[in-house]
Amino acid sequence: MELDALCDQAVLAAVELGDIGRSGRSAMLRSAAAALEERREALVRVADQETALGQQRLTGELTRTIYQLGLFADVVDEGSYLEATIDHAGTTPMGPRPDLRRILRPLGPVAVFGASNFPFAFSVPGGDTASALAAGCPVIAKVHEAHPATSVMARDALLEGARAAGVSTGVLNLVFGQEAGALLVQHPGVQAVGFTGSLPVGKLLHGLASSRACPIPFYGELGALNTVVVCEQAARSRGPEIGRGLTASFTLGVGQFCTKPGLVLLPASDAGRGLLDALVHGVRGTSAGVMLSARTSSGFATRTDALRQLPGVTALAEGSERPTDRGWWGRPLLLLAKPEALRDLLTEECFGPVLVAVEYDAPEHLVQLLGRIGPALTATVHADAGDEKEAWSLLSQFSAKVGRVVYNGYPTGVAVTWAMQHGGPYPATVGSIHTSVGQTAVRRWLRPICFQDLPDGLLPPELRDSPTGRDVIPRRVDGRSSGALDRTD
Amino acid sequence: MELDALCDQAVLAAVELGDIGRSGRSAMLRSAAAALEERREALVRVADQETALGQQRLTGELTRTIYQLGLFADVVDEGSYLEATIDHAGTTPMGPRPDLRRILRPLGPVAVFGASNFPFAFSVPGGDTASALAAGCPVIAKVHEAHPATSVMARDALLEGARAAGVSTGVLNLVFGQEAGALLVQHPGVQAVGFTGSLPVGKLLHGLASSRACPIPFYGELGALNTVVVCEQAARSRGPEIGRGLTASFTLGVGQFCTKPGLVLLPASDAGRGLLDALVHGVRGTSAGVMLSARTSSGFATRTDALRQLPGVTALAEGSERPTDRGWWGRPLLLLAKPEALRDLLTEECFGPVLVAVEYDAPEHLVQLLGRIGPALTATVHADAGDEKEAWSLLSQFSAKVGRVVYNGYPTGVAVTWAMQHGGPYPATVGSIHTSVGQTAVRRWLRPICFQDLPDGLLPPELRDSPTGRDVIPRRVDGRSSGALDRTD
Repeated sequence: MELDALCDQAVLAAVELGDIGRSGRSAMLRSAAAALEERREALVRVADQETALGQQRLTGELTRTIYQLGLFADVVDEGSYLEATIDHAGTTPMGPRPDLRRILRPLGPVAVFGASNFPFAFSVPGGDTASALAAGCPVIAKVHEAHPATSVMARDALLEGARAAGVSTGVLNLVFGQEAGALLVQHPGVQAVGFTGSLPVGKLLHGLASSRACPIPFYGELGALNTVVVCEQAARSRGPEIGRGLTASFTLGVGQFCTKPGLVLLPASDAGRGLLDALVHGVRGTSAGVMLSARTSSGFATRTDALRQLPGVTALAEGSERPTDRGWWGRPLLLLAKPEALRDLLTEECFGPVLVAVEYDAPEHLVQLLGRIGPALTATVHADAGDEKEAWSLLSQFSAKVGRVVYNGYPTGVAVTWAMQHGGPYPATVGSIHTSVGQTAVRRWLRPICFQDLPDGLLPPELRDSPTGRDVIPRRVDGRSSGALDRTD
Repeated sequence: MELDALCDQAVLAAVELGDIGRSGRSAMLRSAAAALEERREALVRVADQETALGQQRLTGELTRTIYQLGLFADVVDEGSYLEATIDHAGTTPMGPRPDLRRILRPLGPVAVFGASNFPFAFSVPGGDTASALAAGCPVIAKVHEAHPATSVMARDALLEGARAAGVSTGVLNLVFGQEAGALLVQHPGVQAVGFTGSLPVGKLLHGLASSRACPIPFYGELGALNTVVVCEQAARSRGPEIGRGLTASFTLGVGQFCTKPGLVLLPASDAGRGLLDALVHGVRGTSAGVMLSARTSSGFATRTDALRQLPGVTALAEGSERPTDRGWWGRPLLLLAKPEALRDLLTEECFGPVLVAVEYDAPEHLVQLLGRIGPALTATVHADAGDEKEAWSLLSQFSAKVGRVVYNGYPTGVAVTWAMQHGGPYPATVGSIHTSVGQTAVRRWLRPICFQDLPDGLLPPELRDSPTGRDVIPRRVDGRSSGALDRTD
């Protein structure tokens, strides 16, 4: 179908999403989740054929995707995402003030670009789509070429949920191919873009979104070099454990996570070298895994070859090779780089199972090394008793340039929860003041509107003087936030 | 001083703004407000010399500006703007979840572009600066050439407030001239831009902000054709009153407000014609006023000449001319346009005291006419008993494309309050999901960060398990919003 027709359908579906109200939309999300659950076996099978991510990983990802739809249904039911705000008429030092009531409303049809590495959670049925539908925005999704059949199956499941809620199929459409994707971002009917993918493609699409006759918000999750710093005492007390944990984290999913740790800074001490030994041991115990596509695999090989050849870089350990000649393999790799080598390529994300270790001499040295590393989605600090001063300094430095700081843990694994932040300053994301994971992701698809002196009966139900039932939501009234305690049910 | 040096200063000031904490920043805003109050007489005098806006208008604008600083101090004290969110560790259908705590943190130094028509409220000491400082972001302001001396005086007052709070002068610097402004938007030290001004300049700067090596958010309030629709019964019962009110609104401040009503749609009926007569009468009773600059005045003259010469456009009434030859006058003008003429220039903002009236035959006709009008900051509906159906339809249409809907009132006068929304879909603003007026304007300068499993003592005080005193703020804990009732003081 022509893009114009898809957008026309989406505009009509936007009206339907408004008409069914919050209760209708949460019901829609729940029945979409149920429809995915019903097709679980087939979805996982097809996704595995297309991506080779494996049954276990895909089962978990689908569970997460289904769970996420339910959480956004909860968000819609709870209602505080609307930021309902009432200022009654009154007098101020500026003179009389009218009655003003503010609420958020959907932007209209939006575009969602699926990612290669998450056929469910960051693709057609993923967080961008779920949050946009929750907000009341129809979605036109650009399917990633790595999993078209999975995407069509997922779309069908979501549409079953929509139909059950009385919404027509225009609520979710698919487009295929890079050219269609570029046209989608430029189409006047599209009001915002959610994108998960590479920096070059993200930059290109952001440029298109910004240079439209009518520019639109572009929310791009692009990628990151996620740094892990291990302090002296932590290396001393938990070296082998951190070595194991870090190995598991950077090789998880064949290193194809945007939160994959790509750089570890270790103390140049006995404890640090002990941890390095543990990493070497750990990596030698891993195996090569099948990557997402031939392009991903060859990109990884080319990039790691380039890294190995940099002056000051040594390959310390590799995972065992799989007994096959020409699959899309990614073989875990641990590199050691001299501190002076930490620049250019070594400070950029390398998608796949590679970890670069660098030894630092002293806290001052660490500050200097961190100064060469750009913003990222996450940063991780391992610190134990005795590392307090260093930990405090690291937290302060990292807070200025990442979206999530992990303490004595590992950055892979992004919980879907109210407090999650998945986003960071550019180039981790474009539009870093938003998140693509967690309940607050819904904020990206909404804009405020204020009603001045509107009669009660003409107001959205959540803004009326005495809302009832589901229309009772947390509100800020005359400057005072009511929170959930406002609810009477 | 070189821009590099200003940005370096600003980075240091950002640390200071963090160090003094919320209580320090609210004290700073209040002492800045007090310093402006102390200089009131001189500020108004100089601003009047530079802008000719008149003592009364400027006194009111300064009062508003001072009041606004105090409101942002209240916002900082109240603390819910931080969106503090805690999800304790627990189990989920996805397995164990770590402890996650989210809060908003300042973006860093930001650029603010002052507007010609508001030397105080939308310039150096205005809402963008006040909200950025409240958020903890130092400001580098590009001074509008229409009021440089006022800007320097206002800067000095704000810095007196900063000094009293222990913050150095890097917290607020000024740059002058278009070239410096363009460089400012492109400087790597600047993390976001607040702009109030014309569409062409806003487009240019937005392009610069988006095409940087590291793109940054651009919040641009650009302008709007604000539409007023009068329904039949309202025209019938309140025609003369609406005529007077509308005349006052579009000529207020010589029509130099971004919320100035520029188009009124009236019923083609006896009641509508009665209202039109009242408008004619009202406009004839007005006088020409001094506009902001020679360029504003000549721009208004050129534009209104073009409008008058459009086919289907008739000049119905003008304000009386001032007895002088070559001042920067703007003479109120009422035009009547045939419905078929409503396109192109007539659907764009004309800055200055001109109002275009168009008669509509029937509700269906109205829908068609409104379809030709783009997004705007505001839209206004006048409706009385008997107009319900029409009013409902108008509200629905306007809600889709403006930031504020006014009912039986006038759009000029933008209250500074929690519920205000000053922004709308492009071209009213770039970044329409934010507001430049009202307490939520602070959101533009903040980004979320999430702490995973951070020990209590290393967390920002507002995220700790048992905050005390001023650190007790409304939070969402395990999905439940506590609202202000969490406070113990």
